[in-house]
Amino acid sequence: MRYKITIEYDGTNYCGLQKQIKRPQESIEEALENAVFSFSNKTVKIFASGRTDAGVHALGQVVHFDLDKQYDAFTIKSGLNHFLIESGIAIVDCEIVDEAFHARYNGKARTYCYKIINRRAPAALMKDRAWHYPNILDVEEMNKAAQFLVGNHDFSSFRGADCSAKTAIKNINQITITKDGDEINIEITANSFLRHMIRNIVGTLSWVGVGKIKAQEMPIILEAKDRTKSGPKAPAHGLYFLKVDY
Amino acid sequence: MRYKITIEYDGTNYCGLQKQIKRPQESIEEALENAVFSFSNKTVKIFASGRTDAGVHALGQVVHFDLDKQYDAFTIKSGLNHFLIESGIAIVDCEIVDEAFHARYNGKARTYCYKIINRRAPAALMKDRAWHYPNILDVEEMNKAAQFLVGNHDFSSFRGADCSAKTAIKNINQITITKDGDEINIEITANSFLRHMIRNIVGTLSWVGVGKIKAQEMPIILEAKDRTKSGPKAPAHGLYFLKVDY
Repeated sequence: MRYKITIEYDGTNYCGLQKQIKRPQESIEEALENAVFSFSNKTVKIFASGRTDAGVHALGQVVHFDLDKQYDAFTIKSGLNHFLIESGIAIVDCEIVDEAFHARYNGKARTYCYKIINRRAPAALMKDRAWHYPNILDVEEMNKAAQFLVGNHDFSSFRGADCSAKTAIKNINQITITKDGDEINIEITANSFLRHMIRNIVGTLSWVGVGKIKAQEMPIILEAKDRTKSGPKAPAHGLYFLKVDY
Repeated sequence: MRYKITIEYDGTNYCGLQKQIKRPQESIEEALENAVFSFSNKTVKIFASGRTDAGVHALGQVVHFDLDKQYDAFTIKSGLNHFLIESGIAIVDCEIVDEAFHARYNGKARTYCYKIINRRAPAALMKDRAWHYPNILDVEEMNKAAQFLVGNHDFSSFRGADCSAKTAIKNINQITITKDGDEINIEITANSFLRHMIRNIVGTLSWVGVGKIKAQEMPIILEAKDRTKSGPKAPAHGLYFLKVDY
């Protein structure tokens, strides 16, 4: 039986989705595998729709795993939540799916949100949940710049150094930037993303926001296919994995 | 010189606003007094507009303190924020006020918000920021019940056992209950509150929400002036101090 689960997590105390030999903290993957073991006494392998770095959060990450025994969706959900109590991870949905379903390979589009607290005063309640940016950001200019990235492009200029993807060509379906009080939300949907691609895009947009570069320079940065031409990598703790479309 | 500062805090790791002899954690008050000392080398006493329990958060708590030396508001704000870095406390505003100003005595109305995550799955990202309530709450009935509390009443039925107030008569200006997805927000404004009054009101409203008591029973509970007639005390971590009107 293949189980597809949708999970929410606070990434603050985890080393990321995947096991990391060099990091002392547990991974989301291990926490889930341990919960499945506590629940069923079976060792499973978790397959996630996409990796997230240490500190990155999720509201709708999707993973799948297999168990010989058939449980109903409600039992899996409440059983795993019982063993995940106080972990900062919660199972929000469970579905029994066909064996042909694969959380990663069947994912057609992923949506992330990047949250910025744009004010002089540091963030207290949002300390580990948003990027505190003290200088005023011009959201309109950032939005203009972002629209140059929509479509099918080679995103080498926004690719993390240790990215193992075969190609840097990705398709961004949409980017929307909204501002509510001192909170800025950048929502971005693509078929999939390169390592650190969203954080590198957000860092570059912050340069546009403070006028260090112009919105019109975005196509030049994109065409350079050179990471040294784009802006800094925004911190992990502002990033949220929102959903996968299958 | 009297300084009025507006502060935001994540109450999770604090013993509350006031020093607590029995608790090992620091209080918000001590953290602020220490920051003022690090900044000015002067020992001050912090006067807050109202106390908050351990775990209670604030977006707009107001406190005042005196320093002989005159600093401009910006210097106080950034100076204190420098010493509060990573503390979960942030100074969002500072004003130099007349010596007649008192954060507590001059406060005409206080507004709090109580946040509930109403869904089967536990809260991961909102774990220490909202009350997780797994059974479906009827928000419309809760709102009907809440309206009986608006006005000038003796709130003995919602008064914490260790409350030291001279009178239990308080004036609730308004209560609004809204629902957005699985998040319920109860916003409540009064001249001031008795100890645990909001948490006892929210606990009682949760009984209304699940049909354990009827909205129409609220006046009876209120008139009983007896804490044993009302519902349980809702947990601290769903409560936020929003603002004080002067």
